[in-house]
Amino acid sequence: MGKKNDLTVLRHSAAHLLANAIKELYPDTLLTIGPATKEGFFYDVLPTRNFKESDLHVIEEKMREIAARNLPLTHEQMPKNEARKLYKDNPFKLELINEIPGDTVGISRQGKFYDLCRGGHVESTNDIKYFNLLHISGSYWRANKSNQALQRITGTAFITKEDLEAYKRHQEELQLYNHRRLGKQLDLFSFHKESAGFPFFHNKGKIIFNKLVDYLRIQQQKHGYQEIATPIMLSDELWKRSGHYTHYKDNMYFSKINEQNYAIRPMNCPGAFLIYKERPRSYRELPLRLAEFGLVHRHELSGVLHGLMRARSFTIDDAHIFCTLDQLESEILNTINLVNTVIKKFDFKNITISLSTKPDNAMVSNEVWQKATDALSSALEKAGIKYNVQKGEGAFYGPKIEFIIHDSMGREWQCGTIQIDFFQAENFDMTYVASTGNKERPVVIHRAVYGSLERFIAILLEHYKGHLPFWLAPIQIKILTITDDQKKYASKVQALLQQYDIRVIIDESSNPIAGKIKVAQLEKVPWMLVIGTKEEKNTTVTLRYADGKQEFSIPLQEFVTRAINLNSLNNTR
Amino acid sequence: MGKKNDLTVLRHSAAHLLANAIKELYPDTLLTIGPATKEGFFYDVLPTRNFKESDLHVIEEKMREIAARNLPLTHEQMPKNEARKLYKDNPFKLELINEIPGDTVGISRQGKFYDLCRGGHVESTNDIKYFNLLHISGSYWRANKSNQALQRITGTAFITKEDLEAYKRHQEELQLYNHRRLGKQLDLFSFHKESAGFPFFHNKGKIIFNKLVDYLRIQQQKHGYQEIATPIMLSDELWKRSGHYTHYKDNMYFSKINEQNYAIRPMNCPGAFLIYKERPRSYRELPLRLAEFGLVHRHELSGVLHGLMRARSFTIDDAHIFCTLDQLESEILNTINLVNTVIKKFDFKNITISLSTKPDNAMVSNEVWQKATDALSSALEKAGIKYNVQKGEGAFYGPKIEFIIHDSMGREWQCGTIQIDFFQAENFDMTYVASTGNKERPVVIHRAVYGSLERFIAILLEHYKGHLPFWLAPIQIKILTITDDQKKYASKVQALLQQYDIRVIIDESSNPIAGKIKVAQLEKVPWMLVIGTKEEKNTTVTLRYADGKQEFSIPLQEFVTRAINLNSLNNTR
Repeated sequence: MGKKNDLTVLRHSAAHLLANAIKELYPDTLLTIGPATKEGFFYDVLPTRNFKESDLHVIEEKMREIAARNLPLTHEQMPKNEARKLYKDNPFKLELINEIPGDTVGISRQGKFYDLCRGGHVESTNDIKYFNLLHISGSYWRANKSNQALQRITGTAFITKEDLEAYKRHQEELQLYNHRRLGKQLDLFSFHKESAGFPFFHNKGKIIFNKLVDYLRIQQQKHGYQEIATPIMLSDELWKRSGHYTHYKDNMYFSKINEQNYAIRPMNCPGAFLIYKERPRSYRELPLRLAEFGLVHRHELSGVLHGLMRARSFTIDDAHIFCTLDQLESEILNTINLVNTVIKKFDFKNITISLSTKPDNAMVSNEVWQKATDALSSALEKAGIKYNVQKGEGAFYGPKIEFIIHDSMGREWQCGTIQIDFFQAENFDMTYVASTGNKERPVVIHRAVYGSLERFIAILLEHYKGHLPFWLAPIQIKILTITDDQKKYASKVQALLQQYDIRVIIDESSNPIAGKIKVAQLEKVPWMLVIGTKEEKNTTVTLRYADGKQEFSIPLQEFVTRAINLNSLNNTR
Repeated sequence: MGKKNDLTVLRHSAAHLLANAIKELYPDTLLTIGPATKEGFFYDVLPTRNFKESDLHVIEEKMREIAARNLPLTHEQMPKNEARKLYKDNPFKLELINEIPGDTVGISRQGKFYDLCRGGHVESTNDIKYFNLLHISGSYWRANKSNQALQRITGTAFITKEDLEAYKRHQEELQLYNHRRLGKQLDLFSFHKESAGFPFFHNKGKIIFNKLVDYLRIQQQKHGYQEIATPIMLSDELWKRSGHYTHYKDNMYFSKINEQNYAIRPMNCPGAFLIYKERPRSYRELPLRLAEFGLVHRHELSGVLHGLMRARSFTIDDAHIFCTLDQLESEILNTINLVNTVIKKFDFKNITISLSTKPDNAMVSNEVWQKATDALSSALEKAGIKYNVQKGEGAFYGPKIEFIIHDSMGREWQCGTIQIDFFQAENFDMTYVASTGNKERPVVIHRAVYGSLERFIAILLEHYKGHLPFWLAPIQIKILTITDDQKKYASKVQALLQQYDIRVIIDESSNPIAGKIKVAQLEKVPWMLVIGTKEEKNTTVTLRYADGKQEFSIPLQEFVTRAINLNSLNNTR
């Protein structure tokens, strides 16, 4: 057994220990299922009274007490009828027993406690040493909202003390650099009860947003995209045509104009399609790449809203590429290059790519589908990129590529997507006149780089732990004078930098220099310019980085040039 | 009598002539009112069958026939009872007779035709020589929609033939440079029946939009503004608080989230107010200038929609300044400077400014109101700006300044506004902690520079007749090679210019140079670069302007520098 399996066995056993503790403390609680997970374990239970966070401590103490009893774990096969008697008062376990194939089921035991179980345990309860309960949440029997509501108690367990401590440190770090916390601390954005789930960008947050747009706008222009802007309210007739009304209407907001129903758009596609259809198109115009920074609204339940990560309105950096089937490969390659170029700027640890292929419910012919999948994989290979194949995971209307970024805290985020669509050209009756003079249907590629800009900002904040790179920081440079005597020189430096649109402010407070440095550090300003009599006399600056490193006596003009270069959105690094 | 009065008399007489012609042709038509206007004259009538545009010709011919009869115009005072007999079958005229003070009313006559009239006419019908009927539209008795629907026949008349012809030429020009026509011709934007009244910006239109935003963003930053972004859906509770719900709800669109009513915002104020209120504010933070390029939705009847000039959704370059009463003057001055600086870049013929003062229904004390009006007029004087006072024309919640721009075709457009508001700080319970430690209410200034960006684009398109200035043109430079041999050099020039974000394309067609020039002219590209063997050999370019003027043999590097300078958004000229 490898280490991973050891860990799974340990965590599975910890789930039994948790169930054992619950049954000793609250015997009438009904157990349902309790698996090991990637991060630990949980048990879903139906208590006679709802557990509170404060109960976790009591349960954990009981777990430790049982562990210390050093009870051996045993496992046996039991005839189903016998097992049904054991669980005669627990409809959940009875349902599970009925579903297990064969005449017997596995039962594990430790002391008087028993649990339905396929096996795979540590030898004794005392082997479970390094564990903690983490939180209580709501769940449903079989994760289905129309079933019985349950409570989920989640914990984690590790083989060594060091591993558990590392995990806890990591959790604290995640908590510390949670984007909602950083958003408040750095004055970036807020949420208000008057429009729950809709972000309000303060100035500093809006600067980050604008810079992300500016940067992608430049890169898109270089890759031959045309930016457009379409309305956010469109007749529901369009959404019926696109299929969103049927499949997605519970997540859409609606309004009325005169007697016509309108939807607040949840996606940007129909607007781009109407522009495509605005006049007859020739093959000479293809590929046509229409990009839109499109504000969309999608309903989410209050419970799942999570700052900028999951909001009810957000901006997708959408593009729709209209091309011929023969242009598909080169278009995919162009898009892959764009995504890679853009993402490179953000210092992620790694990008992995997955290709989702034909599902069982695929539309259009095998031949076309195959050609599209070949175009995708061939483009990936030409770009020299390794990828995983997600067999059968494509949408019914076409295959797709997904970009998964790996952040500085070991987490994975799906951002960029390239989705081929053989469906909407038919649906919206989009055509072009081919070189033969015949009308043909274009292939449509839906494409996003950041995905949701709001979510991408959240990811960046956590990834960078609030220390945004120079080009993206709301305040790029803060000038700190040692005494008031340098104020004039400070203003001169500021004016010089502002000429090149560098975001630079002067700390006008009467704090001593150490105090000024501390404030700038809390604000996570990437560059501090410390200015004293020496700097003024020699027309130099002392550059202090957020991590405390310093460079002394940089000639002012040299410094300005460095700032301009680092600020350029034409740089992809 | 001055010339203006002569013209009024002539047009007033032309309205009688129109009415005379209608009564001769269609005796059962009921006349209502028919005044002279700034642009001509009209008559509102109730016909027995609706007039069509094709009837105008017949009516105009009849007018000319009556004019040629050379009938003298007379005017008499008639006892009201007698006049009532004359109009016994015309309830409109009877209503007018009843409203005229005194016992008699004026009646003018020409031949058998008579009309209720205060007097002031030409001597004979034959004095009305230079006139035309223009169009038919709908109207209502006393301009009130709940009254009888009427038809309005509009015409114009001038004293001299030259004046009439100049007017017609001007009308043709307005028609030719109508922004909707230019929008289609230059591929800037479109409208679609699936969302009537909501603009779709094509790439070239979106570039203009973005450049206007970029330019104002830079200018706002220089003037100490902070850009924010707030949601477009907000609980209707906020709109009830702001007063919009009571006064404006018929022009608002609504939606629902869970069971809560939301409005699609018609204005940006409440979002800015919520950010202001997000944390306690100190006097040290004031003035706080929060700017937002805010997309708003306002319902308009289909009949009044007019391209980008009047649409159902548009983007206001809104800002809300929160300051103390003592800061009002310097804030107004700062805002006036910003508006003047920004508007200067657009080559308008003139800007006039009006100051609207305290109305009868003013809120807040005389003293505060006076202080605000003094601040506005004092700021205007300090800025060295002449202004008109619109006495009593201010809103009930504060005085305002309006900027009226005069375009190249002699039209006036109200764009920028500075509106002081003593009402919403109370309404939204906004406060700051003053230096005394007391809580005080800030003064709120609402401010717009362009007004609606969409409408401003329409104004610019018409003002420039589609020939946008270099910095704003969607395609700034088009490279035209004389033969295919210069393609490589053309690509080099293009790449060099693109490095500096200049929007430059190469005409890749196989047209001869004259054909390429013609296409670029139709596209209204400001600069054409004509490139032949000589230019390639000498690393120069020949620059051809849209008006056909040319500059030969400009060294390439010199040309690039010139383009960069002209493209800079830091230039206000």
